[in-house]
Amino acid sequence: MLGNCLDNVRKSVPLVHNITNYVTVNDVANVLLACGGSPIMSDEPDDVADITSICGGLNINIGTLNKRSIEGMFIAGKKANELNHKVLLDPVGAGASALRTNTAVKLMKEIKFDVVRGNISEIKTLALGSGTTKGVDADVADTVTEDNLDSSVKFVKNFAKSINSVVAITGAIDLVSDGEKCYVIRNGEADMSKITGTGCQLSGMTTAFIVANPDNVLEAVASAVCTMGLAGEIAKTRMVEGDGNSTYRNRIIDAIYNMDGETLNKGAKYELR
Amino acid sequence: MLGNCLDNVRKSVPLVHNITNYVTVNDVANVLLACGGSPIMSDEPDDVADITSICGGLNINIGTLNKRSIEGMFIAGKKANELNHKVLLDPVGAGASALRTNTAVKLMKEIKFDVVRGNISEIKTLALGSGTTKGVDADVADTVTEDNLDSSVKFVKNFAKSINSVVAITGAIDLVSDGEKCYVIRNGEADMSKITGTGCQLSGMTTAFIVANPDNVLEAVASAVCTMGLAGEIAKTRMVEGDGNSTYRNRIIDAIYNMDGETLNKGAKYELR
Amino acid sequence: MLGNCLDNVRKSVPLVHNITNYVTVNDVANVLLACGGSPIMSDEPDDVADITSICGGLNINIGTLNKRSIEGMFIAGKKANELNHKVLLDPVGAGASALRTNTAVKLMKEIKFDVVRGNISEIKTLALGSGTTKGVDADVADTVTEDNLDSSVKFVKNFAKSINSVVAITGAIDLVSDGEKCYVIRNGEADMSKITGTGCQLSGMTTAFIVANPDNVLEAVASAVCTMGLAGEIAKTRMVEGDGNSTYRNRIIDAIYNMDGETLNKGAKYELR
Repeated sequence: MLGNCLDNVRKSVPLVHNITNYVTVNDVANVLLACGGSPIMSDEPDDVADITSICGGLNINIGTLNKRSIEGMFIAGKKANELNHKVLLDPVGAGASALRTNTAVKLMKEIKFDVVRGNISEIKTLALGSGTTKGVDADVADTVTEDNLDSSVKFVKNFAKSINSVVAITGAIDLVSDGEKCYVIRNGEADMSKITGTGCQLSGMTTAFIVANPDNVLEAVASAVCTMGLAGEIAKTRMVEGDGNSTYRNRIIDAIYNMDGETLNKGAKYELR
Repeated sequence: MLGNCLDNVRKSVPLVHNITNYVTVNDVANVLLACGGSPIMSDEPDDVADITSICGGLNINIGTLNKRSIEGMFIAGKKANELNHKVLLDPVGAGASALRTNTAVKLMKEIKFDVVRGNISEIKTLALGSGTTKGVDADVADTVTEDNLDSSVKFVKNFAKSINSVVAITGAIDLVSDGEKCYVIRNGEADMSKITGTGCQLSGMTTAFIVANPDNVLEAVASAVCTMGLAGEIAKTRMVEGDGNSTYRNRIIDAIYNMDGETLNKGAKYELR
Repeated sequence: MLGNCLDNVRKSVPLVHNITNYVTVNDVANVLLACGGSPIMSDEPDDVADITSICGGLNINIGTLNKRSIEGMFIAGKKANELNHKVLLDPVGAGASALRTNTAVKLMKEIKFDVVRGNISEIKTLALGSGTTKGVDADVADTVTEDNLDSSVKFVKNFAKSINSVVAITGAIDLVSDGEKCYVIRNGEADMSKITGTGCQLSGMTTAFIVANPDNVLEAVASAVCTMGLAGEIAKTRMVEGDGNSTYRNRIIDAIYNMDGETLNKGAKYELR
């Protein structure tokens, strides 16, 4: 059950090394604490091997990448692979610039990722070597909808199989696949896209979930995705007139902080395809 | 009317490239989302030309500048000029260090800015090649007051005319001028100065406003300044005993999130000189 | 009295230069404003000497350090020493990587720090040239408890005397010593460890306190530590069902914003050993 995956995070308090953008890093740290993990951030090439060695997992997020942090990503990723740590890639903005696309593609060549999580545009960029990205949101034309769900599920399964990782495509409908099975998840609220960094937060949290559930990565990723979406739903019920995206941000993190496995099991909305 | 300028942001969802400091960047992103825009951040020289090309406008903020990000500012600014994108300069801390002053002055020489927004001390530094800055706040001796309003309006008009940009000086009284006209704006609350980054947030938001109102830059800037000040007033009415600057920060962003053109038109307090 | 130290911050509005990590920097800035200080951030080697010269104190925090910011730390620290400014070291993650340990140790050799503040693991690393750090939290085996209080007090006194600085070890029980006396402080709440950066916030705030109380550094540090802990207690009384660590973060900063010397005197829980 997905609830167990969350409970396992709280029990084991996984330490997660994050090389992530400076826009949303504070929220990533607080979400990791909220779900029961423990965050540490480091992107300096001379620092990352030591830091990743004491952690259970590594979250690489390429937003606001620079030449120094890119070097850090490769060093940390290779070290984490060597130590059999769990590693996640969040290809923020892949497709929006050559540097981001090339960095993401090269990272996938040289490092084994247990999970790749992005929006449909970013994942398509990785899969097809093309795609467009409007800011950090999926291009409207490329949204996963009920109408195109069959082909979207087929796409994510194929891509996951081809790279031998779990792939999570998040948006209005979330897809999580290991190449064989695909979780189709319908938790979440549209307003979550009006908060910067819910995707980055999810990537940090997902890394904690896969570290805490090492033999059950597909379910762990689905559990993290449902946790974030359900937190958005719970937070929404606590919003009052006059509240907006800043309060919503706080309430979502609060909802994660208060969530337990039982609540998650009751509130998770998914089907397996 | 100023309300139209805000409505136009919500209608067109302008994508804004921000090269901005790491202190307030998360709030800048959330304010851009709150007002109806879409943020993307990038400061790596090898990344900025691609990123700015897919955006409608560029916000350059020199707080926590470094040699790498400075290089990114020049590359992005020149690219944005080439593409006729709107460009804004926020000269954070100009006057506080030689590097900041020189960078701001050089940026103004090599890049055409549609808008320059800062406090009186920073703007005086740019205008006079001198000035003092206490942190990121205007020096007390240099505050725009009712007593020195005539000379302050004359100053901002002259400076705006000399650089052929719209200049916004924000403080207790805000001045926005294109060299001919000057909006004198009396929205806002003194407590806003106890929150880090309301100026940075305003610069990000202003960039979205000028992208969404390309033929009406003066009014768009005045509209953004009134939006921020009015949000401060609305947020203040929602504060309860025990609340402080952190909650106030959230409530201001929330108030922007909920503001529409009609509310802005009713609440904007300005005169034209 | 400790309350006077806080009142002096509000009266003198000390400007504090922070070279600090990008994870918690926004909260550090807002806490400095909340307690009555004024923050400025800069880590570029070419910028830091000018910036620190216009400030009253310097806060060096080695979280997310990089080669450029390390260079900035040494330049700023030496300049601050030259100008007799107050300087504080927060050795975030010392013991977690060679770079962090070596940087902290080298900073202590080349720069005179008025205050060193960290968790027990970090301080032990500095003192003993060894130690382990789980994320940014003290190793469980190394927590200061009532059982090991005598030896812990002895340790902090010895270390403070040996480096001729005030040393603050924060955790469930906080210790602040100048080598002769030791404040044993029992303010605070366990939940504060579920918020990222309360330690970083405390270091920024402590720097403002020592700048505002230059002849009374030991008491100023104890006052800052009690202020943070008491804010955590006050904030906790304002939490309602459904609130979590994100709201708690905001409420703690709010509580600092609203605290005065009298409240602090009444709420501070300490003994002198």
